[in-house]
Amino acid sequence: MTLRSSIAPIPPGAPDLAGEAVRRRRLLQRHLLEGLADAGYEEIIPPTFEYAEIFTRAGGAEVADRLIRFLDLDGKLLALRYDFTASVARLAATKLADRPTPLRLSYAGNVFRQDPERIAAGRPREVLQAGAELLGDREGGADIEILRLALGLLRRAGITDFQLNLGHVGVLAAAIGALPDGDRPAVRRLIDRKDAAGLARAAPGVLTELPFILGRAEALDRAARVARGTEAERAIERLRAVDAALEPDERRHVVYDFGEVRGLDYYTGIHFELFVAGAGAAVGAGGRYDDLMGRFGRSLPAVGFALDVDALAERLP
Amino acid sequence: MTLRSSIAPIPPGAPDLAGEAVRRRRLLQRHLLEGLADAGYEEIIPPTFEYAEIFTRAGGAEVADRLIRFLDLDGKLLALRYDFTASVARLAATKLADRPTPLRLSYAGNVFRQDPERIAAGRPREVLQAGAELLGDREGGADIEILRLALGLLRRAGITDFQLNLGHVGVLAAAIGALPDGDRPAVRRLIDRKDAAGLARAAPGVLTELPFILGRAEALDRAARVARGTEAERAIERLRAVDAALEPDERRHVVYDFGEVRGLDYYTGIHFELFVAGAGAAVGAGGRYDDLMGRFGRSLPAVGFALDVDALAERLP
Repeated sequence: MTLRSSIAPIPPGAPDLAGEAVRRRRLLQRHLLEGLADAGYEEIIPPTFEYAEIFTRAGGAEVADRLIRFLDLDGKLLALRYDFTASVARLAATKLADRPTPLRLSYAGNVFRQDPERIAAGRPREVLQAGAELLGDREGGADIEILRLALGLLRRAGITDFQLNLGHVGVLAAAIGALPDGDRPAVRRLIDRKDAAGLARAAPGVLTELPFILGRAEALDRAARVARGTEAERAIERLRAVDAALEPDERRHVVYDFGEVRGLDYYTGIHFELFVAGAGAAVGAGGRYDDLMGRFGRSLPAVGFALDVDALAERLP
Repeated sequence: MTLRSSIAPIPPGAPDLAGEAVRRRRLLQRHLLEGLADAGYEEIIPPTFEYAEIFTRAGGAEVADRLIRFLDLDGKLLALRYDFTASVARLAATKLADRPTPLRLSYAGNVFRQDPERIAAGRPREVLQAGAELLGDREGGADIEILRLALGLLRRAGITDFQLNLGHVGVLAAAIGALPDGDRPAVRRLIDRKDAAGLARAAPGVLTELPFILGRAEALDRAARVARGTEAERAIERLRAVDAALEPDERRHVVYDFGEVRGLDYYTGIHFELFVAGAGAAVGAGGRYDDLMGRFGRSLPAVGFALDVDALAERLP
């Protein structure tokens, strides 16, 4: 049965859920919110639309084209929530400005991404996310707390077969930064594509080796040998400290990955992606972004992550 | 602390929740969703934005100006969800077209209303609603089921001091319909304002008395006496049947109200509003709208209601 007019019933990329999909989403959302609350993370609910400037301030100019934007009655430019990190930063710098740090905040709600690739691939423009941000603590203990929380939430949800790919921007940043300005984008693309031959031609030293190292503790050892005497050493030491702090049943989900360059402009320390058996794309991502809060007028170190609730719900056992 | 730019941190009427407000909302939302599921209502989650045409099709032209609208990439006009009834009707006529009736559907999510009066009054443009729709049953039993569900949800949430104002469009419809076309809007305004002197001048017969009748079972008796021999009798009989079907602890929350004209173009049978002690405006509303589903290509009788979750959460004991 179709609508009487010739219009398509819903816009492309608009999720329209009923039945089992709703039950799984609600169950998972409840588990995640309970897990976040138990860990001491206070939930915030920012508005569905904010000034577009909030999201570009947090995410940079490349976010602008992916915003779903519209004009307010007074002519100001609004956008549907692109991510929660921007709203959390804005809240922490305004309504929660008097709260002492560290601030532990969590959320569960929709984000909206006007990404032509997503739409063409049949993926939704509207995605339910849940996540956490730990603001005001620059120590490694905060990194481990956030990693532990992400791992714990997946296990609490009943997901057993998953992997967390963990890296640190410091591993490649210095070597890429030492390249001539004009060469950096091309080298990053070569790293992203894992183009060994191209890298051997275009990039000197550690950049021909580090991006290909992926694995468990032995990958840290190998990376440390390759990076000896370079500025990458300190970042690898930070990851070693993380590895040492993890419990065995956490560590078995963690793989060290030195070839991830996509978050390099955003993250300032550790960064990670979560993968679940059977899901094509990452079901979550996070890391440290100590430069972000300052853009909102309250300079604070920050580490956090977001999970894609519907992608995870589909993989529930 | 303020943002470094001079922009206001959030748009007017944008809710921005933290702390206790979030905890109360989440707790109430969970109780409502559990109550709806226990009553056999299947939750649906439609997209946050749909074609604007969906909402005007359901709500009429006057809805158009209150939509938060924007253009899609392909130039089609979109709108943030104005109400769930439109999305439920669209879903029932498309994705759920093969489901047998009666269809019991429920929802919990945000609606968006660009209402200058709301904004000026400091009320949010984004409101969390939860509610239910029973489609495909035109018997009085469905009306009672929906009333009972609404009453039960409030009691389940721990709210004890509340009132349901119940009316039926048939009580005033025939008398208003008998007026000359041009007089109807003015008479409706007089009824809405309870202007007895104005009505005595402008309207004949029952319209000078019925709109002022408000009360419990005795109001039904009084209305029946006033309406004897008119077309209003049948509607009053329907309300009498509702009253007889209610349990004493349900009935004590119900007040019959024959002066409500605001839903007259939308509802086709019973209609009601929910009031909680201490809240200025209604915290919920519902009724029967048998003409709505046909506009979406699947003609079905329908009765349902929506609750304002945040307004209710503020009144939780």
